[in-house]
Amino acid sequence: MSKYISYEQSGVSINANEQMVRQIYSFVAGTFGPRVIETKNGFAGMFRLDYDERLFKRNYKSAVLVACTDGVGSKVQLAGKIEKFDTVGIDLVAMCVNDMLVQGAEPLFFLDYLAVHKLQPKIITEMVKGIAAGCRLADCALLGGETAEMPDTYCKDDFDMAGFAVGVVERKRIVDGTNIRKGDVILGLASSGLHSNGFTLVRNICFKKAGLKMTDMLDELDGAALGDVLLEPTRIYVRPIVKLLSQYKVKRIVHGMVHITGGGLLGNIPRVLPKDCNAVIRKSSWPKHKIFAFLQKAGPIEEAEMFKVFNMGIGFVLIVAEDFANSIKKKLTKYDEKVYRIGRITTGTGKVILK
Amino acid sequence: MSKYISYEQSGVSINANEQMVRQIYSFVAGTFGPRVIETKNGFAGMFRLDYDERLFKRNYKSAVLVACTDGVGSKVQLAGKIEKFDTVGIDLVAMCVNDMLVQGAEPLFFLDYLAVHKLQPKIITEMVKGIAAGCRLADCALLGGETAEMPDTYCKDDFDMAGFAVGVVERKRIVDGTNIRKGDVILGLASSGLHSNGFTLVRNICFKKAGLKMTDMLDELDGAALGDVLLEPTRIYVRPIVKLLSQYKVKRIVHGMVHITGGGLLGNIPRVLPKDCNAVIRKSSWPKHKIFAFLQKAGPIEEAEMFKVFNMGIGFVLIVAEDFANSIKKKLTKYDEKVYRIGRITTGTGKVILK
Repeated sequence: MSKYISYEQSGVSINANEQMVRQIYSFVAGTFGPRVIETKNGFAGMFRLDYDERLFKRNYKSAVLVACTDGVGSKVQLAGKIEKFDTVGIDLVAMCVNDMLVQGAEPLFFLDYLAVHKLQPKIITEMVKGIAAGCRLADCALLGGETAEMPDTYCKDDFDMAGFAVGVVERKRIVDGTNIRKGDVILGLASSGLHSNGFTLVRNICFKKAGLKMTDMLDELDGAALGDVLLEPTRIYVRPIVKLLSQYKVKRIVHGMVHITGGGLLGNIPRVLPKDCNAVIRKSSWPKHKIFAFLQKAGPIEEAEMFKVFNMGIGFVLIVAEDFANSIKKKLTKYDEKVYRIGRITTGTGKVILK
Repeated sequence: MSKYISYEQSGVSINANEQMVRQIYSFVAGTFGPRVIETKNGFAGMFRLDYDERLFKRNYKSAVLVACTDGVGSKVQLAGKIEKFDTVGIDLVAMCVNDMLVQGAEPLFFLDYLAVHKLQPKIITEMVKGIAAGCRLADCALLGGETAEMPDTYCKDDFDMAGFAVGVVERKRIVDGTNIRKGDVILGLASSGLHSNGFTLVRNICFKKAGLKMTDMLDELDGAALGDVLLEPTRIYVRPIVKLLSQYKVKRIVHGMVHITGGGLLGNIPRVLPKDCNAVIRKSSWPKHKIFAFLQKAGPIEEAEMFKVFNMGIGFVLIVAEDFANSIKKKLTKYDEKVYRIGRITTGTGKVILK
């Protein structure tokens, strides 16, 4: 029989896959709400949009589905480096759900695609554990996923992950920036650190240039290990934002929202700005995590470039009607966000002015 | 200024990304129906579930969203080998939409995640062109996507792609196999070739073992180039199946459906079989594409193993009420499918018996 090539011998083990699927099921099931229809060997996940039963009643008049996909970029490589595979799962969820929040949507469910060199059930289990944790933080169900074993595409410790989130928003409550006007206040919510962007540059600076190790404890970071600071998961803004929006169902006082991803404040705020408005940001108006000063000095990187690549301490932005800015700030603070008035909308040409 | 590291210098070009986004927009927009809400710089894609306007009226009583994710596995590596980047895009869509069809869902929209070593706009454009072509074949909108440039995760000509599809099914019309019963007829729809599974084994046999090249013209394949046969895109079964199901809105005569992916008929049919039924398949009941005989001989691979890894000529299976088998076969044939009666359901233990 040994002359026959079996599928296992060519590097892909169908059995290993089945074993792992069972192991991770408990994490996944922990994210299910009553609207998930369980289909154990199903080909696709199922989620009830409307739900008429008492406690969990949900009904939409004109439901608009909002969907987005994202990866974690080269942050995954740092995770591989210290074999810490759970926190990037939170990043993956965060990158997707924060994007859909911007349009006023509330996340419903999430799916993940994991691609690895070799299926190591322990590692995949860690990854899914992190993704499930992220889904719980985002109040969405981990409805499905795919794990691909691709020995020739990915090197030994390399992997990649892609996430996909679907949410819903009532059509008339879509937030799209069109109501942004002169005088609006720009509120910034603190980021937890680098979030998931700029890691190619981070890796160049920290490892290629400065020759640091992930385990190095750095005075510039208050003695924290570099790896811990770099891998700090992206903050998920779902709960405070969904709660906030649910309190202003009639008045439209949140005029625009922005998830600060690759391109920073400078690159992302223009995505929602009307052509006749500028966003004037006072960069001294919020405290900045020490990692930014550390990277700027270690590069060295010009400050302007820092603001183009990193979130610089602000992970999510709301552009709100002036009269409501204080009460919104107060509410979001109550929901455990650090909120800063970082600027104003002026007449302009769709640009961000850093002052 | 040259002592400053800029983001472009570290291998990720934000500008190259922006340029490409414009280039591919035309392909993407070609998949939009009236239910897509366009948001040019939006963070997430938006799709109206219900739609009250005349020609495109769609309304659901109890909408169940059906979602799945998949990749193309190591078929992408073959595409990279001959720098043919469009057809795998069709595969990507097919792998996802065929999966959701199984549960009776009709695809609404699709998102893609592409990860490459370096953003080469020409290549990404080809990939998206293929994905958009797949979406048109599946009557779904290409609602969004992410392209990740990860020079250190992917080698020079390597790339990976993940797809995400969302569809909808009326709750009471979910097809889940629970109605499958003794006497039901198993209909098989012809595959277009290997589809997107088993490529690790294919590559072992064709390239490592037999030393063939993608451009070799093979007598065993009627003189076709090996690469063309291997890369033939996965058949998309959306139109015939959605049309068929729409004709049986009251009676439930399609008891189960199966997308034949990794694991073949043997691995996939049990995913919908009730525990007290067997599926008895007559393997002589349909013609097999020459690629299967070629691989079996070149391996050599045992026939049993062939059936565990490859679709062996059947890409999609319907398990239907006996009395309707002929009329369903006739309809699907009219919709351009090659349909074979490949077996019957008997009492049993949830197994597939190949005869």
